[in-house]
Amino acid sequence: MSLIDQAFQANSNFTRDFDRSLTKVPTPRIAIVTCMDCRLSRLDQMLGLETLDVQVIRNAGAMATEDVIRTLVISIRVIGTEEILIMGHTRCGLNGLHEDEFVAKLADETGTTDGLTIGFMAFTDVENNVREQVQTVRSHPWIPKRIPVRGAVFDVDTGQLRAV
Amino acid sequence: MSLIDQAFQANSNFTRDFDRSLTKVPTPRIAIVTCMDCRLSRLDQMLGLETLDVQVIRNAGAMATEDVIRTLVISIRVIGTEEILIMGHTRCGLNGLHEDEFVAKLADETGTTDGLTIGFMAFTDVENNVREQVQTVRSHPWIPKRIPVRGAVFDVDTGQLRAV
Repeated sequence: MSLIDQAFQANSNFTRDFDRSLTKVPTPRIAIVTCMDCRLSRLDQMLGLETLDVQVIRNAGAMATEDVIRTLVISIRVIGTEEILIMGHTRCGLNGLHEDEFVAKLADETGTTDGLTIGFMAFTDVENNVREQVQTVRSHPWIPKRIPVRGAVFDVDTGQLRAV
Repeated sequence: MSLIDQAFQANSNFTRDFDRSLTKVPTPRIAIVTCMDCRLSRLDQMLGLETLDVQVIRNAGAMATEDVIRTLVISIRVIGTEEILIMGHTRCGLNGLHEDEFVAKLADETGTTDGLTIGFMAFTDVENNVREQVQTVRSHPWIPKRIPVRGAVFDVDTGQLRAV
């Protein structure tokens, strides 16, 4: 059975004992931009935050793409978010990825060379990368200056969050 | 104290009792594209999935943007994901957002009219929207045809996941 089928099945049990406190109208106070990596999924445990206090935005590498800016602007102006944390992590799959080779292989196998206009956004230094993403968000004209934007790296070997 | 400062403080305790099982090298089997909405953060409870089996990609509305395609291609080819679920939800902030008014207000307050080239991606029907996002992912030349891409809507009032 596929994981998706398993998920639908498990959801039936969840629905039976459904706890409305999990899904009341949200009043989140912080948006966290982090990586899709499954080791970063338990933000409540890692950061001691209440689930309903946090909007979570995740892509490969915790990059401040246009999509992330779009999402942050919605989060601030529609939902009421007051702080932003950009959280990269050690051992990220994008750290050290050879993007030219990766794209060449994709193009070779699929016959399509231009599947993305934005590239894959590989990087070589996670702390520098987080600093750059923080700068991109801070300097965007649609992100209000009153919103603090901070950066951190989560170390997957120790569980430690380091400010950058 | 800001939530970010609270998070750093709470993380010190987390580090002390750090459970390496949470962050061993991941072997996820499924990628879930969903909304940043905090009511969707407990995927493990909602869908009965193991945290380390799931890569989670989140933006406003669970939209299949270029950033999401970028992330899915990495997830499939670098990490080994074998299934994709696009999961929208009821009562989404993008559902029924008046995008023209929203942008006009932003432009008026900030003096910048063209902060984003991709728009905010408001929609009016969550099921149709999920179907369109599924189609965008399925038809992308860099998403292998062997990977199942399915869609669902999570009802935040009942906890139920409906296939679309």
